[in-house]
Amino acid sequence: MTTQQYIDQHRDRFLEELKTLIRIPSISTAREHDKDTHHCAVQVQEYLVRAGLDRAELYPTDGHPIVYAEKIVDEKAPTVLIYGHYDVQPADPLDEWETPPFEPTIKKTENHPDGAIFARGATDDKGQMFIHLKAVEAMIQTDSLTCNVKFMIEGEEEIGSPNLVPFIKEHKEKLKSDVILISDTSLLSKKHPSVTVGLRGLTYLDVKVRSARADMHSGLFGGAVANPINVLCEMIASLKDENKHITIPGFYDDVRFPSDRDRKLMQDAPFDAQEYMNSPGVFGLEGEKGYTTYERTGILPTLDVNGIWGGFTGEGSKTVIPAVANAKISMRLVSKQDHEKITKLFSDHFKSIAPESVKVEVIPHHGGNPYVTPTDTPEYKAAEEAIQQTFGETPVPMYEGGSIPIVAQFKEVLEVETILMGFGFDTDGLHSPNEHFGLWNFYKGIETVPAFFKAYAARKS
Amino acid sequence: MTTQQYIDQHRDRFLEELKTLIRIPSISTAREHDKDTHHCAVQVQEYLVRAGLDRAELYPTDGHPIVYAEKIVDEKAPTVLIYGHYDVQPADPLDEWETPPFEPTIKKTENHPDGAIFARGATDDKGQMFIHLKAVEAMIQTDSLTCNVKFMIEGEEEIGSPNLVPFIKEHKEKLKSDVILISDTSLLSKKHPSVTVGLRGLTYLDVKVRSARADMHSGLFGGAVANPINVLCEMIASLKDENKHITIPGFYDDVRFPSDRDRKLMQDAPFDAQEYMNSPGVFGLEGEKGYTTYERTGILPTLDVNGIWGGFTGEGSKTVIPAVANAKISMRLVSKQDHEKITKLFSDHFKSIAPESVKVEVIPHHGGNPYVTPTDTPEYKAAEEAIQQTFGETPVPMYEGGSIPIVAQFKEVLEVETILMGFGFDTDGLHSPNEHFGLWNFYKGIETVPAFFKAYAARKS
Repeated sequence: MTTQQYIDQHRDRFLEELKTLIRIPSISTAREHDKDTHHCAVQVQEYLVRAGLDRAELYPTDGHPIVYAEKIVDEKAPTVLIYGHYDVQPADPLDEWETPPFEPTIKKTENHPDGAIFARGATDDKGQMFIHLKAVEAMIQTDSLTCNVKFMIEGEEEIGSPNLVPFIKEHKEKLKSDVILISDTSLLSKKHPSVTVGLRGLTYLDVKVRSARADMHSGLFGGAVANPINVLCEMIASLKDENKHITIPGFYDDVRFPSDRDRKLMQDAPFDAQEYMNSPGVFGLEGEKGYTTYERTGILPTLDVNGIWGGFTGEGSKTVIPAVANAKISMRLVSKQDHEKITKLFSDHFKSIAPESVKVEVIPHHGGNPYVTPTDTPEYKAAEEAIQQTFGETPVPMYEGGSIPIVAQFKEVLEVETILMGFGFDTDGLHSPNEHFGLWNFYKGIETVPAFFKAYAARKS
Repeated sequence: MTTQQYIDQHRDRFLEELKTLIRIPSISTAREHDKDTHHCAVQVQEYLVRAGLDRAELYPTDGHPIVYAEKIVDEKAPTVLIYGHYDVQPADPLDEWETPPFEPTIKKTENHPDGAIFARGATDDKGQMFIHLKAVEAMIQTDSLTCNVKFMIEGEEEIGSPNLVPFIKEHKEKLKSDVILISDTSLLSKKHPSVTVGLRGLTYLDVKVRSARADMHSGLFGGAVANPINVLCEMIASLKDENKHITIPGFYDDVRFPSDRDRKLMQDAPFDAQEYMNSPGVFGLEGEKGYTTYERTGILPTLDVNGIWGGFTGEGSKTVIPAVANAKISMRLVSKQDHEKITKLFSDHFKSIAPESVKVEVIPHHGGNPYVTPTDTPEYKAAEEAIQQTFGETPVPMYEGGSIPIVAQFKEVLEVETILMGFGFDTDGLHSPNEHFGLWNFYKGIETVPAFFKAYAARKS
């Protein structure tokens, strides 16, 4: 029996098993669901055992356990480390769900004429992670596993993976591998498959501008003292020039652009501006001059104010000049920008542009480095080949706007590149009510992973 | 008996009567004190009758009553209309009072070595208003009232005088007068008396900048859409140039500066920067280039953000690009600036500088026009002469930063100029805990008012 024959034969069971996994409300941030989250880890472990993997174990952490399993077929074969997560986001707001969030329901949609599973975690990341479990099962059960495989499935991705880096540092030897494979990103569309090759990093800071000990009356002091809100606005405004280029000295020093070929593939990728604008109802697109939207969100860094507050914000009017104004500012980072270096550049610059009449505090929150997958490697070529085979199209190397900080850490600690081969769509409602995952996408993923293993083993031998 | 002999003889009674008035908690904004506020109006009426005035009456309004009384001594003599208010601010925070707010207590302070009455309303405005009651009583009882006098004492000044303009419009004939005299402002100091000749006007608006229907994820949209907070900051920053000059076209068209003599008097007036900065603990003074602090708060208009909010403002971090950002912006206006015209100039300009990617709303709250007392009139000269006589110093014509919108309305409706001859100090804790009014100031006021009447009658005859 071929691997594909096995997959075809077990389609319905695969789906039922995924539903079982999805029914467990493994909300990692919710204390009251700690038992469920643990139960979900055990369920993943059980499925790994049943799939034919060895050494399936739960590794306890200070939070939720990490599930590990492996199948070593040949010491000389390349090793693929599969990372995913079994925890999910909270389901609120509950009243916006059309069907209960933890009762998977199959419904057809415009994007998913073959049906999609509606449930929290359907795509992020239970459905996508389960693709690998079932693909590996199919390869093991049909004796066609060409690479060694290791699974590391964590339960704290949605709360920032606080215990994963200590785990990978402690188990470097166990996790030794040639490539890390993750399905936690999206495809452009069915006709235009893509591999995510860029993830932005992030630095996030609170800033505080103070001009006095106490609030002031705008009649007695207005015009003669620094108003910290006005000052904060002026400081923020000065952080970008008229082309929306960020003015912090040295900010772009470590920005590298993709190769001409990759940039061309991305520029040529279909982009539906209306669809992109629709979900948040954006009035218009704008950004740094000379770049497409994909480039603005993928290969350029950003600086956004995520929150601002100060003075009187109630109904009506109060003629106050506040003593202090605050903002939360974050920067998305790209290619070789280092979040600690950028945090320092920002902090130094922000303090340097403050007028003498105010005191400025900058409080860094957290950060993560960007990650770029090199596209001239056997790993990437294998992914390209697998997708070419199952989708009939060369995948677009996509630079995405979001961050998965752990990927940069994998590179730093384990010294292995990651292939981000996701099978969901951006429109699948990740982190939102009515999250879903297409059945077509699920089975297409299960079909593609063995193709990747095969192509990768061939290129590495 | 001379007027001054009468005053000297009745000093203690005057003070006891003021204490009686102060004990009534006439907090106009507090429903639960409506009976007290009414009681206070009756008490003022009773004192007016006892002082020898005629036609003392309470005029009901939709809120608290207006007390009116008059003494017409000679149809040909000039008429002085005295305005004041018997209502007070709330006393909170109560635990910051050293003695109960409605139990007047005499204590000595550095500024008041002869003692001061500590109580809510001691200076604002019961003590200052009572000066006129007792000065007029002294003139009537010693047959030396040289002008006709009318009293209009309201009970809603601290809540914006909502019923006063309808009242003055309805009673224009009754209120006919040659000058309005108000004691509800401050002296520079004992050695440096002053008359307030400028009050700033005000326009106050809410602005709202929206770039989308819903909040956006800063990873997926950051760099490709307008962030309304960044846009709002840029728009606000652009409202002033590097010299802190306001950039709204036409904004300064109706600004007129005082005469060289008045400006020089104000420039030469003593100014203790440290004392000014101390109460709110300001880190430094700054403002439009080429002006002193008194000029910046008195003769220049301002533009201040009184409040700003948008996006995520809680603890920690959230990588959101909000759909909307808000601010409250007010402008203090001077000389001939009209608040409705300025509101329109601001609104038109603010909308014109918005990028196409956002929608801007401007919601005006309320406004008031500035007022400037001309200093080349018999009224002002009489005030100058009276103060010269009782203080031994020429008063400084001071342009103040705050607003008393009703004064501009008096000019518009009654077509009469106002003399703002206050006897308190800015350090007397108006609107704050431990408000007080110096005994020296109280008696110096009672002494100065008859001097004003005498000088004014002489100049007008």
